[in-house]
Amino acid sequence: MTTSPTHGIAATVQVLAFDVFGTVVDWHGSIVREMQALHPEVDADAFALAWRAGYQPAMQRVRSGELGWTRIDELHRLILAGILPRFGLAHLDEAARRHLNRVWHRLDAWPDSVEGLTLLKRRFTITPLSNGNIGLLTNMAKRAGLPWDCVLSAEVFRAYKPDPATYLGVAQVFDLRPEQVMLVAAHHDDLEAARACGLRTAYIERPLEFGAGHVKDVTPRAGNDLHAASLVALAQQLSAG
Amino acid sequence: MTTSPTHGIAATVQVLAFDVFGTVVDWHGSIVREMQALHPEVDADAFALAWRAGYQPAMQRVRSGELGWTRIDELHRLILAGILPRFGLAHLDEAARRHLNRVWHRLDAWPDSVEGLTLLKRRFTITPLSNGNIGLLTNMAKRAGLPWDCVLSAEVFRAYKPDPATYLGVAQVFDLRPEQVMLVAAHHDDLEAARACGLRTAYIERPLEFGAGHVKDVTPRAGNDLHAASLVALAQQLSAG
Repeated sequence: MTTSPTHGIAATVQVLAFDVFGTVVDWHGSIVREMQALHPEVDADAFALAWRAGYQPAMQRVRSGELGWTRIDELHRLILAGILPRFGLAHLDEAARRHLNRVWHRLDAWPDSVEGLTLLKRRFTITPLSNGNIGLLTNMAKRAGLPWDCVLSAEVFRAYKPDPATYLGVAQVFDLRPEQVMLVAAHHDDLEAARACGLRTAYIERPLEFGAGHVKDVTPRAGNDLHAASLVALAQQLSAG
Repeated sequence: MTTSPTHGIAATVQVLAFDVFGTVVDWHGSIVREMQALHPEVDADAFALAWRAGYQPAMQRVRSGELGWTRIDELHRLILAGILPRFGLAHLDEAARRHLNRVWHRLDAWPDSVEGLTLLKRRFTITPLSNGNIGLLTNMAKRAGLPWDCVLSAEVFRAYKPDPATYLGVAQVFDLRPEQVMLVAAHHDDLEAARACGLRTAYIERPLEFGAGHVKDVTPRAGNDLHAASLVALAQQLSAG
């Protein structure tokens, strides 16, 4: 009988918490596809990148206290208002802006996500741990078929990742020790913050997160318990496949 | 073409929020069955009723500010400590008390609940709106097969029903008007409080909530938009069957 590190992890971990934007769903490709359909005159790749580039600075305004608690839907809308003129879309009316802003509720899953989550759900409790708000994550899951057991979000903890209140909040919700929770993400900074709180971590390769024109380095880095090319591969590593 | 009130409701409502204890799951029968197996010498019916009788007074200690925010798991444990001596169980050690307290995570669904929720989920977003904590509701759903789209709880809003923050919180989470949310419950006081906030309401008959020895009056009362004998019947009324 062998007791590989992976089997030890699979025996200890009870909850898998997933980063969502980029890890489970393809925000860049989804926004590009919607923009090409709605506004074919716009550089959809640049538009998607500009919108996403406003994400961390907007959350930083909340983290710093400059803004009170503000959900991602509202932050996406603030960023959108800022970039529309740059892309010749300052004329969009309220209904059009509102519809466009909800594209974040309509993001498509990566091809392996539904199968991977379904396999992992057999053995673990699976939840998002996203900075997206609960309504956004729930609408997205319903449309994309993501089979979450529950929907945890920065909105539940009133704090944005990488605030320790988010990672430790998952453990507290389930009355578990931090090492019984694993964060699954395609972003090293998220995983490092989770690890500093005592969580286990799994890195998922998403080389096309920023589009085929901006391939991301997905070389393994030390520190993560697991490194997988997809959520299906993660399920296999955790003997849930 | 007829436009019955029911069709008007089905067209307006987007989210169904469910009371859980008594409405979706059978707390009395589940606790009786566990007690009969674990401690056959105890009057299981009286024990279940005594534990549940402490529920509203315990939440009132939180609502009044006497206790800070405290989850139902902790409140159930406080009540349990109070009733164990009465039932000759003061000798139970920490592990046994902890296991017994988690019976609230192991409640069985009423026979129609999984089928009814599955039908309703095709057409609506379905979420618990329970005073139970997120971990309890998620563990319960995973065990009983309740197919929630997300898990809302008093814990998300840091307020217990009937605080308006809970009912209005569901609408806010989904960026909806109150009348686009319907509370589904087997308790008139819960439904009345939701209605006062502008939500739609559906009463579900659960005559055996307190056991076969204490049949509950489920006569229809004015005020509710819908009245159904089961969650499957509710789905039929909402044209989701």
